Amino acid sequence: MSSARNKANSRIASLRSMLCVGLDSDLSKMPAIFRSMERPVLEFNRAVIRATAAHAAAYKVNTAFYESRGLSGMRDLDDTLQALPPECLSIADAKRADIGNTSRQYAKAFFEAWPFDAITVAPYMGFDSLEPFFEYDDKLVFVLCLTSNSGSADFEERILDDGRPLYRAVLDRVRSWQRNGNAGIVVGATKAGLLQELRQEAPELFFLIPGVGAQGGSMQEAVNQGADPDRGGAVVNVSRALIFPPGDFRSIEEFEDAVRHEAAKLHNDIKAIL
Amino acid sequence: MSSARNKANSRIASLRSMLCVGLDSDLSKMPAIFRSMERPVLEFNRAVIRATAAHAAAYKVNTAFYESRGLSGMRDLDDTLQALPPECLSIADAKRADIGNTSRQYAKAFFEAWPFDAITVAPYMGFDSLEPFFEYDDKLVFVLCLTSNSGSADFEERILDDGRPLYRAVLDRVRSWQRNGNAGIVVGATKAGLLQELRQEAPELFFLIPGVGAQGGSMQEAVNQGADPDRGGAVVNVSRALIFPPGDFRSIEEFEDAVRHEAAKLHNDIKAIL
Repeated sequence: MSSARNKANSRIASLRSMLCVGLDSDLSKMPAIFRSMERPVLEFNRAVIRATAAHAAAYKVNTAFYESRGLSGMRDLDDTLQALPPECLSIADAKRADIGNTSRQYAKAFFEAWPFDAITVAPYMGFDSLEPFFEYDDKLVFVLCLTSNSGSADFEERILDDGRPLYRAVLDRVRSWQRNGNAGIVVGATKAGLLQELRQEAPELFFLIPGVGAQGGSMQEAVNQGADPDRGGAVVNVSRALIFPPGDFRSIEEFEDAVRHEAAKLHNDIKAIL
Repeated sequence: MSSARNKANSRIASLRSMLCVGLDSDLSKMPAIFRSMERPVLEFNRAVIRATAAHAAAYKVNTAFYESRGLSGMRDLDDTLQALPPECLSIADAKRADIGNTSRQYAKAFFEAWPFDAITVAPYMGFDSLEPFFEYDDKLVFVLCLTSNSGSADFEERILDDGRPLYRAVLDRVRSWQRNGNAGIVVGATKAGLLQELRQEAPELFFLIPGVGAQGGSMQEAVNQGADPDRGGAVVNVSRALIFPPGDFRSIEEFEDAVRHEAAKLHNDIKAIL
């Protein structure tokens, strides 16, 4: 069994938490107290990590929020990865994939140059575009299946000639492509009902469930429908609703208290169900 | 009309070239003379650019080959972009897309932080994942449609319930989503026949055609089927077969001569058809 997956499932079981903290650290949304610092995004992330470490099973770093600031953003990504608690699953939310020769380089980027435990990848280009990721059998590879956004209707939910939606074909292929139990899928919490259906269909896969909070999904539904602690495992990601609490913070401590309060609340919601 | 597209079409017409040089600058594949340098990838790229500038309509930088070396790779990406001839279309081959809020950050990354003229994006997540790119109406946005790899059979070529393959649904949507003529599609040169069909179907789109050379596609077929100089425009990408000429080079000049010879040959092949 993939060691990344074992680590995630141990953490989920011991903490009774499925919380994944999404570090979508948008400079324009963070409290003013950070913005005057030399490295605002890194200091913001360190504060969020301190405030959530006792409640989180995983951390998800979305590469877009770092690439958007060019080289200085990439330095923040580098140092943020170092700051993540080693007992939590670290996910590079990168949504990469290319022809095999090139995907090999992406796998090297996010499993070696930046040694994350897990990555998200996009399925459109098919098997050889994902194989280089699956070759790392100690990691976790989350393939986009049914995403939380409205655009999922455009292609993901299109019906194929066998009467099933495209995302079901993706699910089937992912199940056959995994190695050493290193496959996961991304299913949005905004797709209640379908989340439960996919969970029952593929109990052996690890689920990454985004969309709770700002996107409208509920933690209760996500945990109820997505949890499968005995087998596949799952984490539910919260980004904006957790890391950008409302309020005017006069100190980093005040900010951390607000984030800690929200993380504890989410953790309690999860414990009440698990 | 998108200014990036105007620039590309002017260059194609004046040079009578559709050659796109793919800077898939894999450190392990480049001549030993570069590997002892302080910044081998950047010096390699500068040599390739010097050798191809008189023949190229576009340059394509695949982000995977830079991310795979972490921060030092990203510094090379940064400096490579500065070194590209301003009269050529610069393409970030990034294959990004995420929920709208996040795609906005990717668009900022590759149109502002690194000011490329064009980007490749992946369609799986649908409209709101691509809209932030299309909002830059002076740029060019290439959506993956029918890619050059074998995995295209897994999902791209799956037949939908209306009897048409998924990639045709992508084509239709892209045509309706573009703004100011800023849409393009990626169609592999290895899909001869289908390339011609898509070109006829969507004469107004700009085509990025990879897969010539190492992947087995032919320049003649790609130009014959993909060219549409009066309307959409197209560039044909060559990476490995151009930038890694066989031979043991004792100097950078010898290496440049070999690349220049290959670029001139490809340019002549194109001129003979256009």
